[in-house]
Amino acid sequence: MFTFFALFVLSLSATIPAIKRKFDLFGIAFIAFVTSLGGGTVRDVMLGTFPVSWIEKPYISLAILSGLLVSFLFTRRISRFRRTFFWFDTLGISVMTIIGTQKAIEAGVPEFNTVFFGVISAILGGIIRDILCNEVPLIFRKEFYAVPCLVGGYLYLGLVELNCPDYVSTFVAIIFIVVFRFLAIKYKLSMPNLSSRLKAAKR
Amino acid sequence: MFTFFALFVLSLSATIPAIKRKFDLFGIAFIAFVTSLGGGTVRDVMLGTFPVSWIEKPYISLAILSGLLVSFLFTRRISRFRRTFFWFDTLGISVMTIIGTQKAIEAGVPEFNTVFFGVISAILGGIIRDILCNEVPLIFRKEFYAVPCLVGGYLYLGLVELNCPDYVSTFVAIIFIVVFRFLAIKYKLSMPNLSSRLKAAKR
Amino acid sequence: MFTFFALFVLSLSATIPAIKRKFDLFGIAFIAFVTSLGGGTVRDVMLGTFPVSWIEKPYISLAILSGLLVSFLFTRRISRFRRTFFWFDTLGISVMTIIGTQKAIEAGVPEFNTVFFGVISAILGGIIRDILCNEVPLIFRKEFYAVPCLVGGYLYLGLVELNCPDYVSTFVAIIFIVVFRFLAIKYKLSMPNLSSRLKAAKR
Repeated sequence: MFTFFALFVLSLSATIPAIKRKFDLFGIAFIAFVTSLGGGTVRDVMLGTFPVSWIEKPYISLAILSGLLVSFLFTRRISRFRRTFFWFDTLGISVMTIIGTQKAIEAGVPEFNTVFFGVISAILGGIIRDILCNEVPLIFRKEFYAVPCLVGGYLYLGLVELNCPDYVSTFVAIIFIVVFRFLAIKYKLSMPNLSSRLKAAKR
Repeated sequence: MFTFFALFVLSLSATIPAIKRKFDLFGIAFIAFVTSLGGGTVRDVMLGTFPVSWIEKPYISLAILSGLLVSFLFTRRISRFRRTFFWFDTLGISVMTIIGTQKAIEAGVPEFNTVFFGVISAILGGIIRDILCNEVPLIFRKEFYAVPCLVGGYLYLGLVELNCPDYVSTFVAIIFIVVFRFLAIKYKLSMPNLSSRLKAAKR
Repeated sequence: MFTFFALFVLSLSATIPAIKRKFDLFGIAFIAFVTSLGGGTVRDVMLGTFPVSWIEKPYISLAILSGLLVSFLFTRRISRFRRTFFWFDTLGISVMTIIGTQKAIEAGVPEFNTVFFGVISAILGGIIRDILCNEVPLIFRKEFYAVPCLVGGYLYLGLVELNCPDYVSTFVAIIFIVVFRFLAIKYKLSMPNLSSRLKAAKR
């Protein structure tokens, strides 16, 4: 039920950039599917854990299609709910990061690399969406959410290592990522940018 | 034999956009391979049905290479056969849609999701091609062929459900997709576009 | 040890285009990982040989992270070592081509198709990098290294067929690719370009 609702909202918010780019209804639907499922699909394929998780669960496709339908019926109103989407989106990537890390641990990936799969689950959908829209992925320049996911993933690993019960580790790590991202945006934290140095070197 | 000829023509027509973009011979060959095999490869990888079908069959690579050779020798003349290519292309995506749907059924995918794999087989090669050429995939804005594939795929599922013999269902669904696409283009059908509504909402 | 050093240098050189495009530190790291590991990952996934090779070996991630760290600390100086990078890069793709071809042979791919996997290992990382930077892949227009890889791959196959010991075939093929690429650049060889013919046909 929670998954259904999360995917419904994710798909709803995923339609906006596609609508802005004047994609037709099929293009919008394709973008919604890829944004919602792309990260998890690439994770499962790289881990070799078949079948890819969403394929076996038709309710996942139905959740995305419901999101699309609502987006189609209430296009105008949706674009006003940016703030709500921000919170859902942040919660969504936090959950995805921990689920992805857990799946990698189960698949026997060495600990150090497991967090990469968490981050891939969380961000790759958005990266593929930006590429399909023919843009440089936003996350490479501005959006500050990969770092909270990375740090949160390693925090989760550390808590598990310390023998915390899994539900505690999961809960703490998710809250950590949400708060970290919120603070990062509030205080306009951003990652250092090396291009100015390179420019200086060229003179 | 039929597959060989189909891939030969597909590869032939796939070279044109690459040539126009001033790609060198390697770039053209890469585009021809990706356009021809990309959809089926992603489908097989997502389904986890290894080995990916074309890999085991060297005649598939040879068909594409033959198409490239003819395209290289007769570049001028080829660009005149647009109309012929349209029919081959339409027939090709129809066949690919049904083959992809059948493969997903065999792989045990829940019925509702099988058609997605048919559509992926048919259109993903072209989407990857457009991305490699650094363009927004044509299919997201103009080309009307994903919808006939989708509807045709579900028609096929329905016919199978009604206990039609497989060859009848296949044949009917393929003809349906071809006719649907032809009519859609003739009467300039297109998918609804929601961007105007969003614009209105912003004022 | 050799692999560690090779990946270290590869990741070092991979950061430069990302820095130039004003990516933030995360974007740069993502590009370094994708450029270094993308080709091999796609090869392993298409062959269905799980787990994907780098996943099991945490030292590979560490090599790339070390390259990133050095790149971060000495950004100015690195951009001066273009010539050194050229040789490392050329050696790197030669080795990757032969390793990829060998892995495809082991996976039971028909001989004619094995070289494709060698070439994919060598060049796909760079193609994905260019797409993430929102550019037409350089290799489709200018860079002349796919052809040496292809020819070198088939040379390797031929030597193996003639019962050469594997280490001899590997060594000869790698040297061949390096020399071929060097000569190609020195004498400004490039692949034929068909776009002029198409233009002529349109008049």
